[in-house]
Amino acid sequence: MVILGIDPGYAIVGYGAVEYARGGKFRTLGYGAITTKAGVPLQHRLVEIYQDMLTLLDHFKPDVASIEELFFNTNVTTGIAVGHARGVILLALAQKNCPFYEYTPSQVKQAVVGYGKAEKRQVMELTRSILGLKKIPRPDDAADALALAVCHAHSASSRLLETGV
Amino acid sequence: MVILGIDPGYAIVGYGAVEYARGGKFRTLGYGAITTKAGVPLQHRLVEIYQDMLTLLDHFKPDVASIEELFFNTNVTTGIAVGHARGVILLALAQKNCPFYEYTPSQVKQAVVGYGKAEKRQVMELTRSILGLKKIPRPDDAADALALAVCHAHSASSRLLETGV
Repeated sequence: MVILGIDPGYAIVGYGAVEYARGGKFRTLGYGAITTKAGVPLQHRLVEIYQDMLTLLDHFKPDVASIEELFFNTNVTTGIAVGHARGVILLALAQKNCPFYEYTPSQVKQAVVGYGKAEKRQVMELTRSILGLKKIPRPDDAADALALAVCHAHSASSRLLETGV
Repeated sequence: MVILGIDPGYAIVGYGAVEYARGGKFRTLGYGAITTKAGVPLQHRLVEIYQDMLTLLDHFKPDVASIEELFFNTNVTTGIAVGHARGVILLALAQKNCPFYEYTPSQVKQAVVGYGKAEKRQVMELTRSILGLKKIPRPDDAADALALAVCHAHSASSRLLETGV
């Protein structure tokens, strides 16, 4: 199963693709970030994000995506723009028939570290270790996206265990 | 100048297209609403909104769009979903090279009625009168979209007067 983790944003969208086999074996297929320039009008940034997402979906052909759930508990103006970006990301996923699951930051921490209030650094370090990478991926958004992919793998495999499928 | 007014939403997107000539003459080209069904997953509703927006832009070939600015002062959950919908609307506008202007509800009231705290019904009635329509357009979202188009025409023409262009 190929899982594409996505950390949404309008200035930077982190992504990380992993292959996950039964038994818990991971292979990292690639990771990075779509970045858009500050000062460029939002609608043109949305076009870039949308087109790059389509390219990533064609490239990795994920079976499923794992995307961060959006909360407006921080800056409202930023939240609005991230909502716009997340809209075009979900559009690209739907057009490519890629199902997706949403996780909150605390669900990611719980699934990766086993503790919902873990430090961000711990999550990154454990994600690195689980994936057998030498260094914590850069930028942070790519590391967050890989953590989302690992989170889905762990959540999906615990669902499989629970249901006995 | 053809102006497409857009009242964004995820369940219903109101639209209204008007032709506006120097001297203040309006012609209503069409209005209505893109509706998506409750219970359909958000990403599929986003695909519908995006495709219908592209169709509307091809049909009316607007020179400019006038879209309501988004504020998160009401329901946060609704606000997030509207942000997603607005993202795919802006994407369609950018892909069709249609510039757009954003107006707050109070700017629309000010431009149509001349009073920023006017009642919603007054705005609808004056929009009907300005456009020479027999009845207030239905649904409300279409009437709101036409008010946005009139707002832009009035704002644009007052800018022209001010700058002497």
